[in-house]
Order: sequence, then structure tokens, then C-alpha cells
Amino acid sequence: MERISQRSLLSIYFLDLLRYLCPEPYPEVNIEFLEKNGIKLFHFGIEGNKEPFVDIPEPVIREALKVLLDVRNHPILIHCNKGKHRTGCLVGCLRKFQNWSLTSIFDEYRRFAGTKVRMLDQQFMELFDVSDFKAWTYSRRRLRHS
Amino acid sequence: MERISQRSLLSIYFLDLLRYLCPEPYPEVNIEFLEKNGIKLFHFGIEGNKEPFVDIPEPVIREALKVLLDVRNHPILIHCNKGKHRTGCLVGCLRKFQNWSLTSIFDEYRRFAGTKVRMLDQQFMELFDVSDFKAWTYSRRRLRHS
Repeated sequence: MERISQRSLLSIYFLDLLRYLCPEPYPEVNIEFLEKNGIKLFHFGIEGNKEPFVDIPEPVIREALKVLLDVRNHPILIHCNKGKHRTGCLVGCLRKFQNWSLTSIFDEYRRFAGTKVRMLDQQFMELFDVSDFKAWTYSRRRLRHS
Repeated sequence: MERISQRSLLSIYFLDLLRYLCPEPYPEVNIEFLEKNGIKLFHFGIEGNKEPFVDIPEPVIREALKVLLDVRNHPILIHCNKGKHRTGCLVGCLRKFQNWSLTSIFDEYRRFAGTKVRMLDQQFMELFDVSDFKAWTYSRRRLRHS
């Protein structure tokens, strides 16, 4: 706890839609800890992929990835409730941006998803287009240096 | 057996290098069956991917894929000794040619490889370039129609 408190840690906390709609807040004790240590908290209400009709919302993942790519926010702790599907998809998209092969992206994803691997998650990562993020980070870099 | 014998079945039989180099032939009874039923047999001596130094030979897979894509050879039975790595890689390359997503290719591969999944196999399929096969089948189609 002490070690974490000394870092400018940013926690991106994904609430699923159910939890978001219900009055179930981020644990009070955690919020106190974050405030005490000047840690920013970003909430992205995301519902994970679930057959047959629920798709992870791509625009929200794009917003979360922007926060993730902004080095001013590092180091970052990303978590959802189980660390499988929502966190897995976001990290997979980050890896894609970092030019990892899909073989390696899926391997990392599977290590955390275990027996709960979802085809839809992998399909989401495969189809996720990172080209505009490359342009976005490039333009930000140019902005900083101009 | 009776049903198979009525089909113009082509078996592509992969021997691993060990088996290929040792005097261990395709079982006599199988050969008899194939001859009796006019079934062609193609042997491709392939050593499967194995960390750290053994890579599946891409040129042989390319030759095998050519046989596989030639509709005059259909229907085809493909098999190796366990139906995991060598057959898995060849079928994965076929699926890539058929424009399957990598998510689906890996999923099919994993169904047969089970607990014996190899990163190297998936990497091979991901890096396998099918663009020249598309040109090749296109030129053959033009040739047939000219």
C-alpha cells in the first residue's frame, strides 16, 4: 500500500452496465485511499462482449485507450471486476497499437481469461483498427515539439 | 471403409523427418486399400514446429497447399500422425487463403491441438503470406477459361 501510494498511479476502473446502473459505488475505502494519495480515477462504464447480442462498446474502448496512451498518466493500473474480458480487450488493443502479433496478443489475453476465453473478445481485438491512433499520437508528438 | 472406397479420396500423408529417414513405411494394409480403390497418395515429409530450433518448412507447406487447392484432387483427406501441428498448420494456411479471421483459424486449430497448442504454429499461420496463392489460382482460372 505504501509503495503504491508513492506513485502517481492512475486507476481506470471499468464498471459493467449492471453495476453502473445499480447504486453500487467503487468501494469507499478505495476512494479514500486514492484521494489520500492523489491518485486519479477514471471510470469507463463498459459492458463486456457476451453472445449473442452484447458487444463491447468500441467508442468507449477508444476513449480509454487515449487515456492509456497519454504518458502523463503513467504508471497506470487497469482493472475491471475479474480482469478477463474488458481489461483483456483494452490491453489487446494497446498491444495491437504496439505492433504485437495477434498470436502474442491472444496468448496474453488467454493467460488471464483462462477457461473463460471468448471468441468475441478476440474478434474485437482483431478487427480493432489502430491506424488512427498512430496518426493521433504522431500529431500530439509534433504538437509537443513545435 | 466401404463408403470411403467409393470416393476419389486423396490422402496427403505427412511423415515427420524421423519417420521419413527411418525405414518406416506407410502401413501396408493402408497402401493396399488405397491401390484397390484408386486413391492417390501424396507424401510430404514435414517436421513440425518445435522450440527452439525446428521450424516447419514453409516451401513444403506451399507445395502441399497447391495440391489442396487443386479442385481435381477433391475430396481430400489430410492427416499426419496426430492431426495437431502439421495438419493444423496446413489447414490454417488454407483457412487464411479462404479469408477466415485469425480468431477463427486459431480457434479451429486449438480444437484439434487441445493442450498441445504451440505458439510457433500460430505464428507460422499468422505470418504465412497467401497473396501469391490468390494470384496463382486466379491465373489457373484464366487458363482454364481461355
